[in-house]
Amino acid sequence: MSAKNMEELVSLCKRRGFIFQTNDIYGGIKGLYDFGPMGVELKNNLKQSWWKSMIYERDDIEGIDASILTSPIVFKQSGHEETFTDPLVDCRSCKSRWRSDQLNENKCPQCGSNDLTDPRPFNLMFKTNVGPIEDGTTFAYLRPETAQQIFTNFKNVLDSTPHHLPFGIAQIGKAFRNEITPRNFIFRVRELEQMEMEFFVKPGEDEKWHKTWTDLRVAWWEKQGINRKRLELLNVPKAKLAHYSKATIDIMYKYPHGLEELEGIANRTDFDLGSHSRDQSKLGITATVEKNTQSNAKLAVQDPETKEWTVPYVIEPAAGVERGVLAILNEAYKVERLENGKERTVLSLKPHLSPIKAAVIPLKRNNEDLVNKAKEIKNILQGLGLGRVLLENSGNIGKSYRRHDEIGTPICITVDFESLENETITIRDRDTMEQSRLDIVSVSEYFKKTINN
Amino acid sequence: MSAKNMEELVSLCKRRGFIFQTNDIYGGIKGLYDFGPMGVELKNNLKQSWWKSMIYERDDIEGIDASILTSPIVFKQSGHEETFTDPLVDCRSCKSRWRSDQLNENKCPQCGSNDLTDPRPFNLMFKTNVGPIEDGTTFAYLRPETAQQIFTNFKNVLDSTPHHLPFGIAQIGKAFRNEITPRNFIFRVRELEQMEMEFFVKPGEDEKWHKTWTDLRVAWWEKQGINRKRLELLNVPKAKLAHYSKATIDIMYKYPHGLEELEGIANRTDFDLGSHSRDQSKLGITATVEKNTQSNAKLAVQDPETKEWTVPYVIEPAAGVERGVLAILNEAYKVERLENGKERTVLSLKPHLSPIKAAVIPLKRNNEDLVNKAKEIKNILQGLGLGRVLLENSGNIGKSYRRHDEIGTPICITVDFESLENETITIRDRDTMEQSRLDIVSVSEYFKKTINN
Repeated sequence: MSAKNMEELVSLCKRRGFIFQTNDIYGGIKGLYDFGPMGVELKNNLKQSWWKSMIYERDDIEGIDASILTSPIVFKQSGHEETFTDPLVDCRSCKSRWRSDQLNENKCPQCGSNDLTDPRPFNLMFKTNVGPIEDGTTFAYLRPETAQQIFTNFKNVLDSTPHHLPFGIAQIGKAFRNEITPRNFIFRVRELEQMEMEFFVKPGEDEKWHKTWTDLRVAWWEKQGINRKRLELLNVPKAKLAHYSKATIDIMYKYPHGLEELEGIANRTDFDLGSHSRDQSKLGITATVEKNTQSNAKLAVQDPETKEWTVPYVIEPAAGVERGVLAILNEAYKVERLENGKERTVLSLKPHLSPIKAAVIPLKRNNEDLVNKAKEIKNILQGLGLGRVLLENSGNIGKSYRRHDEIGTPICITVDFESLENETITIRDRDTMEQSRLDIVSVSEYFKKTINN
Repeated sequence: MSAKNMEELVSLCKRRGFIFQTNDIYGGIKGLYDFGPMGVELKNNLKQSWWKSMIYERDDIEGIDASILTSPIVFKQSGHEETFTDPLVDCRSCKSRWRSDQLNENKCPQCGSNDLTDPRPFNLMFKTNVGPIEDGTTFAYLRPETAQQIFTNFKNVLDSTPHHLPFGIAQIGKAFRNEITPRNFIFRVRELEQMEMEFFVKPGEDEKWHKTWTDLRVAWWEKQGINRKRLELLNVPKAKLAHYSKATIDIMYKYPHGLEELEGIANRTDFDLGSHSRDQSKLGITATVEKNTQSNAKLAVQDPETKEWTVPYVIEPAAGVERGVLAILNEAYKVERLENGKERTVLSLKPHLSPIKAAVIPLKRNNEDLVNKAKEIKNILQGLGLGRVLLENSGNIGKSYRRHDEIGTPICITVDFESLENETITIRDRDTMEQSRLDIVSVSEYFKKTINN
């Protein structure tokens, strides 16, 4: 199942505390969103799932968390100052500005005039002044991708961990892009989060690893609940490749607004390490890199036998967290018609992604015995360390069920007066809506089985 | 135990991959640091411990994750545009700039001249232009604290979750401060991470809750391994209170560079919600707030019986992640003299904070049987979901032990040829250095006991 349109998702996200527009009490800011109580849990669960698969379940990848503010020299060498641009046109009539490649006709979408300027490149990097002197010489960029801070830390990581090629460095963090026309909810935003991993390999082994990582990443998205039918692999045509890329496979997802990129897996060759290295001319760099006169580090590895230095090639799976969240919400969203004719909205999230793993609900609000018993069960389940378990003291079971269907809670556990007599509770399954009576001593096992499913 | 001085910690952090200076291959940027492979795990573990204690183990606090870029109106209403400043002086002789309250003598630390200007306020907020028009009207601030985005989301959270007073909203995220003179390693930096929680209470109950949260926060820091002897509570004198505060307790920690703030617990009264609310005059706000003509939301709660609207008071425990990491590293750091006369450096981290929970080390590098057996054990322990478990195929046990002592790994597990014969391994304890032989079937229990300790 999936949503009929974006509006359904936007509405659910606001109603149930997944996603709000930033500063909406002041009218909002275009292209900026805040994650609410349910959104932050879903997002964190997705990030943890990625981190686990990249770092914990392998032994050849290390994580880092580098700063957002970045020295201009980094983005000069990386080519971003020159090429990280979108084509911008002005409307001479109403003074509005637009991305020329997104205009359907040669008319201003705001006033309808066709008096538009020729397109010119607009750099998407945000910059800010650093330090108390404001003469334009001491600024930093807000990084437009997390990748560059991985490359600049290549030697630091290699020197402090016991790795040899092939190995990777992974990072999750914010990136900023001054989009001219942000749109499609959280799909194209100005402040985003990325999950990027740079996998360093011997030149010549790059194409094999490019294929391997593409397969691994598709399999990972399937484990997050994305139906393979709504994924397509796009081999980016040569003419559209980024300046650093030898080949890129885009994992495209059928979003409510159309087929668009969920993740890209790029073969960045030795371009990046080569760009940030000293002694460039001695390293046999194959990519065309800008001359570097400022780096103090040799970003290369030495062959223990031949003693020769080589700049590794890089395979980069780079995914957007918000785009992942949007795809997962879309996949999980369904509206069911019930036997009584009513409708119910359910988020059939994979349990490891659910914001709340189980809700424990006392039948009567503020009844001390029921609440204490519920608290006891909550603490046992919470102690298992499988994610958030909620004691919901709302006193309205029907309302609680509806809420937990819509936020994707796999099970609801109701504590009633019978529970106090015979140590049993009612468990309700999100997907089947079936309710069954269970001994309290068996709840942990049932819970573990459901969540680890 | 603790470090003798900051240099010891800086050196360990670089050597073992905890913390590097940002863009150090280009000479670094003052006041910016990157977390390396061990640092990111330690930091994430600390953040998760906070999140768990705030949200998962209670039922009255929700989390959010809001954007860093923030509308200027937010920081106008909050008072930051007016008051978030440090006193700045210029040296007329060498043109350098300094924080006047940090100059020991009335002389320039750079050139020694005493020809300094009078101090004037310098605003610490970073700003950046948003959108394609650069005329100074469409900028955003990089938030200097996460708190304001909690207040602006007050109604969103209340409307989408079933809470009543008292309840809280928690957030972990980056904040940015254009410090004039960043210093003391990661203590005073320009890009930092905060763990802030705003607890909304009925006016009149604020002082009781202020006391409660102060006690809870001290107890939490003790659980992270901070010795109570190196903590002091400072009741901030009236004259030094922030503009929003009725009372603030600072939890001070004895850092290598002196006694400084680790966390502050402030009674922010109804200042913040009152500042961002519409209909201010009808809400009986007690704080002095700037008139708000732009907010579209009433940030107040209605009494179900009297129907009266009240703006809740706020108790805010606000901690710095980097300051926490620095205190924890300092506490855990020790140099021991061994019986053979040599020294060893150990990080006696609490196991839940250790970057790596266990290292599984095959006795011989690349021996297939040993590596497979090690992999088997790694996978079992990793599957328990207690954090990162490493298969370290280095082939040098002594070197591995030294590394894992210095990064605080609680146990090392060695797989040797005997392991292949009788299904036993050697376990080495970080703190006692004792080694014992254990059946492989018993490793999970031993591991769980150690890590959950």
